[in-house]
Amino acid sequence: MATRANSVPHPTLVQGLHNRWHPDIPAVATVKPGEVFKIECVDWTGAQIGNNDFSDDIRDVDLSKIHNLSGPIAVEGAEPGDCLVVDILDVRPFDKMPWGYTGIFELENGGGLFAKEFKSRAAKAIWDLKGVYATSRHIPGVRFAGVSHPGLIGTAPSAELLATWNKREGELIAAHADAVPPVAFGPLPKGAYVGQDLPEEVRKKIAEEGARTIPGREHGGNCDIKNLSKGSRCYFPVFVPGANLSVGDLHFSQGDISFCGAIEMACEILRAGIITFSTSIIKGGVEKFAMKQPIFLPSPVDPMYSAKLVFEGISVDYHGDGKQYNMDATVAYKQAALNAIEYLMKIGYTREQAYLLLSAAPVESHVGAIVDSPNACVTLALPLGIFEHDILPQVDGLVKKNFGQAAIRSDGVV
Amino acid sequence: MATRANSVPHPTLVQGLHNRWHPDIPAVATVKPGEVFKIECVDWTGAQIGNNDFSDDIRDVDLSKIHNLSGPIAVEGAEPGDCLVVDILDVRPFDKMPWGYTGIFELENGGGLFAKEFKSRAAKAIWDLKGVYATSRHIPGVRFAGVSHPGLIGTAPSAELLATWNKREGELIAAHADAVPPVAFGPLPKGAYVGQDLPEEVRKKIAEEGARTIPGREHGGNCDIKNLSKGSRCYFPVFVPGANLSVGDLHFSQGDISFCGAIEMACEILRAGIITFSTSIIKGGVEKFAMKQPIFLPSPVDPMYSAKLVFEGISVDYHGDGKQYNMDATVAYKQAALNAIEYLMKIGYTREQAYLLLSAAPVESHVGAIVDSPNACVTLALPLGIFEHDILPQVDGLVKKNFGQAAIRSDGVV
Amino acid sequence: MATRANSVPHPTLVQGLHNRWHPDIPAVATVKPGEVFKIECVDWTGAQIGNNDFSDDIRDVDLSKIHNLSGPIAVEGAEPGDCLVVDILDVRPFDKMPWGYTGIFELENGGGLFAKEFKSRAAKAIWDLKGVYATSRHIPGVRFAGVSHPGLIGTAPSAELLATWNKREGELIAAHADAVPPVAFGPLPKGAYVGQDLPEEVRKKIAEEGARTIPGREHGGNCDIKNLSKGSRCYFPVFVPGANLSVGDLHFSQGDISFCGAIEMACEILRAGIITFSTSIIKGGVEKFAMKQPIFLPSPVDPMYSAKLVFEGISVDYHGDGKQYNMDATVAYKQAALNAIEYLMKIGYTREQAYLLLSAAPVESHVGAIVDSPNACVTLALPLGIFEHDILPQVDGLVKKNFGQAAIRSDGVV
Amino acid sequence: MATRANSVPHPTLVQGLHNRWHPDIPAVATVKPGEVFKIECVDWTGAQIGNNDFSDDIRDVDLSKIHNLSGPIAVEGAEPGDCLVVDILDVRPFDKMPWGYTGIFELENGGGLFAKEFKSRAAKAIWDLKGVYATSRHIPGVRFAGVSHPGLIGTAPSAELLATWNKREGELIAAHADAVPPVAFGPLPKGAYVGQDLPEEVRKKIAEEGARTIPGREHGGNCDIKNLSKGSRCYFPVFVPGANLSVGDLHFSQGDISFCGAIEMACEILRAGIITFSTSIIKGGVEKFAMKQPIFLPSPVDPMYSAKLVFEGISVDYHGDGKQYNMDATVAYKQAALNAIEYLMKIGYTREQAYLLLSAAPVESHVGAIVDSPNACVTLALPLGIFEHDILPQVDGLVKKNFGQAAIRSDGVV
Repeated sequence: MATRANSVPHPTLVQGLHNRWHPDIPAVATVKPGEVFKIECVDWTGAQIGNNDFSDDIRDVDLSKIHNLSGPIAVEGAEPGDCLVVDILDVRPFDKMPWGYTGIFELENGGGLFAKEFKSRAAKAIWDLKGVYATSRHIPGVRFAGVSHPGLIGTAPSAELLATWNKREGELIAAHADAVPPVAFGPLPKGAYVGQDLPEEVRKKIAEEGARTIPGREHGGNCDIKNLSKGSRCYFPVFVPGANLSVGDLHFSQGDISFCGAIEMACEILRAGIITFSTSIIKGGVEKFAMKQPIFLPSPVDPMYSAKLVFEGISVDYHGDGKQYNMDATVAYKQAALNAIEYLMKIGYTREQAYLLLSAAPVESHVGAIVDSPNACVTLALPLGIFEHDILPQVDGLVKKNFGQAAIRSDGVV
Repeated sequence: MATRANSVPHPTLVQGLHNRWHPDIPAVATVKPGEVFKIECVDWTGAQIGNNDFSDDIRDVDLSKIHNLSGPIAVEGAEPGDCLVVDILDVRPFDKMPWGYTGIFELENGGGLFAKEFKSRAAKAIWDLKGVYATSRHIPGVRFAGVSHPGLIGTAPSAELLATWNKREGELIAAHADAVPPVAFGPLPKGAYVGQDLPEEVRKKIAEEGARTIPGREHGGNCDIKNLSKGSRCYFPVFVPGANLSVGDLHFSQGDISFCGAIEMACEILRAGIITFSTSIIKGGVEKFAMKQPIFLPSPVDPMYSAKLVFEGISVDYHGDGKQYNMDATVAYKQAALNAIEYLMKIGYTREQAYLLLSAAPVESHVGAIVDSPNACVTLALPLGIFEHDILPQVDGLVKKNFGQAAIRSDGVV
Repeated sequence: MATRANSVPHPTLVQGLHNRWHPDIPAVATVKPGEVFKIECVDWTGAQIGNNDFSDDIRDVDLSKIHNLSGPIAVEGAEPGDCLVVDILDVRPFDKMPWGYTGIFELENGGGLFAKEFKSRAAKAIWDLKGVYATSRHIPGVRFAGVSHPGLIGTAPSAELLATWNKREGELIAAHADAVPPVAFGPLPKGAYVGQDLPEEVRKKIAEEGARTIPGREHGGNCDIKNLSKGSRCYFPVFVPGANLSVGDLHFSQGDISFCGAIEMACEILRAGIITFSTSIIKGGVEKFAMKQPIFLPSPVDPMYSAKLVFEGISVDYHGDGKQYNMDATVAYKQAALNAIEYLMKIGYTREQAYLLLSAAPVESHVGAIVDSPNACVTLALPLGIFEHDILPQVDGLVKKNFGQAAIRSDGVV
Repeated sequence: MATRANSVPHPTLVQGLHNRWHPDIPAVATVKPGEVFKIECVDWTGAQIGNNDFSDDIRDVDLSKIHNLSGPIAVEGAEPGDCLVVDILDVRPFDKMPWGYTGIFELENGGGLFAKEFKSRAAKAIWDLKGVYATSRHIPGVRFAGVSHPGLIGTAPSAELLATWNKREGELIAAHADAVPPVAFGPLPKGAYVGQDLPEEVRKKIAEEGARTIPGREHGGNCDIKNLSKGSRCYFPVFVPGANLSVGDLHFSQGDISFCGAIEMACEILRAGIITFSTSIIKGGVEKFAMKQPIFLPSPVDPMYSAKLVFEGISVDYHGDGKQYNMDATVAYKQAALNAIEYLMKIGYTREQAYLLLSAAPVESHVGAIVDSPNACVTLALPLGIFEHDILPQVDGLVKKNFGQAAIRSDGVV
């Protein structure tokens, strides 16, 4: 009688670390389709941010070496043109460190969507991770279930795709040579890292050509899509033999609004942690599904908060100089966020707390319409169920409570 | 013994029609807070589009007089600075005309988000409205529940607000004087209409200064937000005594993706119909809630389709010339939509059918993140439950069916 | 060029009325598969209950002639053994009467689940129907979206099936001959009605044999399942040629808890109204799907209230004499409901208001488990979003408001 | 500068084990309100069931010592009459054993809801736990997200409450002295266990008086409510100083339909695992909230499968001898389950597979109505999203696949 093996835990693969995308980074492990495996992911900053009550570590963070990615993992049989199906089976923090943080970065070091509007100074919130929930001593009065997901996940680019990236981004950089912060980030040998024994010329090539990990691209990458969460099924195009999947920047939670940083700024609750995968291959899937970028099926276990308060924004900078923009969804997105922030300030949160909360909580942002010239319309939805108190508009106005302040710099500058 | 009156139907207010926003348009009726009332809304084009199988009427549509709005309705006691709470209690088509349409407009007459990419030629789909559902003989294989809502609803602007609109939009127009299609639409006496007896100088003033109804603005207006649906509660800032609420452009259904037209393009299922309201007033609400634009609570009866297939897009025009854009959410939104359209074409829909379907069905589009320079990330979610067949990626690829074609021009040009 | 007819409204079929189930009741109309049609349904009591502030009409109601059903409607091609697919496309009240009621019936006239526990005396709540919502002057502080559905819908039984019903119910009646209220209701010529010209012997046969409409049975019937709502798709077994579908007892709203009456007691918000259908046939569906009773797909537009307060109950009558029952889900269901009622009384509702509210609102009741002897476990979930105030448990206890009282008898007896 | 401690993991409390409810079982640990802590729970059978492909271990299981509970945990400050608020923050299996099982028990050893109907013989399904999902080699074609929860959780009874239980259950047992299986289970010194050093007279008292853990009761206990899941907040009445909370029988998943066993039968996916809690106290909560049994708030992270196929059942045993029962929800529940089982058999599952699947998957069972004499109506909803293939009714009938068979006895008897 054939009996299956009892109680075999899912293997945890030895992590490889790298911080550039390049086809020549060898796979550190190979899995078979159908196999369940785990990958440990380290903190993207090298543990520079502490569980404490000042934001000096955010202010002084060294951003030259991001992101620490685990992998690449090769999948047996995957070839260019195939579709790699990745089941994200679980994402969770290490038990020994049940906390995370959300940060606002300095205008001059990290920046962020509102860096200029706010002349932003470092602030942060430490989140206590309590099972499925997060709470923060720096943002009292809220508790929410996390939409845990990898901020960064993708297959390796082919040499050709990499060249396309470097060319097009190079042109953008050239066209905005003096921008502060920069509009994009080209290959940079300084800080490039691959944690494997490699021939020097390979290492050099990777360092000189490797794409930075900051933006998402056709292979996935740093898309920061909260719904690529535990329980989702993702379809990636394959560009190199083995597919060579890498992952990192695990988030315990994040909203659709992730806007603190210009150089991928950890404006979400994140920590080192463990991600569980299984994979399969659809031969020729890129052609079969007309894939130019990943597609995915969301998870059935994402938090359900059906009651929401929704803020609108249009492409007029009415929070600033009042200028009319032409169908600019980014401007509309900012207005919606600023409307929400001002509303939260009426309840008693500081601007920093509100800003941090919108980045961390399961907020949703929809593109209402981009059709009614000249105003694009974007909405931002605050789930009511994350607040301990009723925050709905009342006839007598909103009760303003004292929620203290986020963790700010030890010199008190905000 | 006091007994309440039996069986009193909710009154249907006599419709006023107007197609400009101006503080001097008098209210056509006054309601008390708490009163339930209905408003009949006519078709925004004056019934130019027919329930037939060619799109010549779309090709030839005269867009000079849009939008036909019903109102204004004054609410007793509302004053500038107040918040007008509007419960959208119901939205439904007239029983005698259980159909609607979605249109793709010509590049040179109406345009739309993909007008240039597609060199678009007129096409349309007629939708049969069957209770809560819509189906179309021009797009077989789908059936969905409508998110019925007014495409256009808002309070009247004050003279000061109107001046601000005209100034800022005028500056944008001036800066893009030769744009085709135009980037915005300034006041235009031709076609201006107010269906009331008015002194000639008032009528002239309205025609010369009145804001066009095309974009959404701080008062609401043509936001095309699908979630301002029946069952939602909306909070509008009040700018004139009585608030003077107007409404029109009822949609039986629409997705987050409403992209067919540049001049408010009816890229949704819409018809004349009836909307039911009740209102209340929160004194000083604008200050109490820091309102710069409406906020709202979505409806508990919006269709729930939990299973979705999600497409991603970034701010690289990889469907076109491959150019890299700088955090441009509109470009990202287009890529996500084009990815979905190409996927639907693998299943057998034509490009026109796919384009029309995305505008009409309860599709959701989220802003994934605008932080990872230079790529904004936007997603578009297709609800699986609206399709009669399983459209998920399969190992053997997608089964391509023959769904015919949308209603196209009688000369066969697409 | 072939052009389809414009603007054809869905036909409203002439209503037939009948109040017994019998195979010999002829169809009053015939529809084709795929056709959309409407049916008007009258009030089941013959308009005995008024929109007023006393419950005397409930106390004195004559229950001898229920239920007024519309139909039967024959579907072309349906034969015994087929499955009749019925799309319930819409359910709505007549515009001229935007109100409904919920009633508690007298112990001796109508009874109800708690008739004995409460020694119940007539009470009622009049609900104002405002678009998708209901509110009541008799139960202030709540507003909810209706799950509109037909309380009673079914196909006609064959002679053989009818005989089975009469036999098994007759045996139950015989075994509980003296029960008050009766345990079941056998054929009763008195009050039997078929609103068609029929030969006298047919009319007599129907009156003498026709099954009462009170319980649900294998053909559907009076199941009072709230999720057979507008937007749902139902599969009925067919027992006679044409299927002969009948429908009535439209409910604007109802919870899983419908417990006021022993003889089908209108413990829901109901009125005359209009239901919209389309149908199709699956040949041999009874065998294909192993159907012994209808199956259905719920609607995507049922109200979504994700936050709930849930009460448990077990099969011990701890609200009464404390007796232990053996896996009795009905006893458990009562305890859960009584726990909810007592909780609502802490908030300030009277017992009558709480009882009426649970019958009318979109409450859910789950069978937790029937396995842990001797206690079955049933839960009842109150949606938080229907209350104007926060009803959650608070450290300081619950704030008790004064919500007045339901409509009671003019002699003040409750 | 005050800095909080970094990276303190939540403590795992030393487990106490006991298998009876009694006020004299001392707390094994004390926690403060607000503290987050974990408790390890062992397998309730003592690891008698193996991850293999025969069901002999189920057939031969020794059920005399269930359930192994962890605790009691005292909460500082809790007193009789208080309400103990318990946040169930997480529930998960041990990483080293990512599997669970569902079992059908023998008619003569364990029994279950359909033990008599099916003359049930041992069968089981082994589930592989893959992150948030479960799949089974014994029930191919399904994959579902777990609603992880403790099957058994409760506060300790007071001496008075315990006496009430023993009295009322003793009377039931006495009234059905010869029932097979027994209708209830009185105190039984044999097998009673408390894993602490106790004076012999205390141990003896507990063994002689202690309530069996099989049924749920006023303190919670073995309610098997799937929605007491990770992320839920539960309110328990307190009967003894410290509340003395105990927990066990962790389920990875379970439906509303948990019906395999008569003596608490593990008809769910369960394993040893870890549960994370925090608690707070509401003084006098029993009176404040009129609590006779726990109440709770469901979790926002329960799996969301919006599309369902729903089966109805009434209180006629039409799957058996056709007998009419009087408003018996248990009979109705059985018919709905049997209708679902027969439908699943049309798709190709064996009766054993279908039975096991309904117990393990996130199936929902609603009480439709208990009002329409003599038929109670209960529904059972199968989530469509758990099946790999479309299981909806089709015009051509259902495609019958070969899914093999569940794990059965090595002698082949089913």
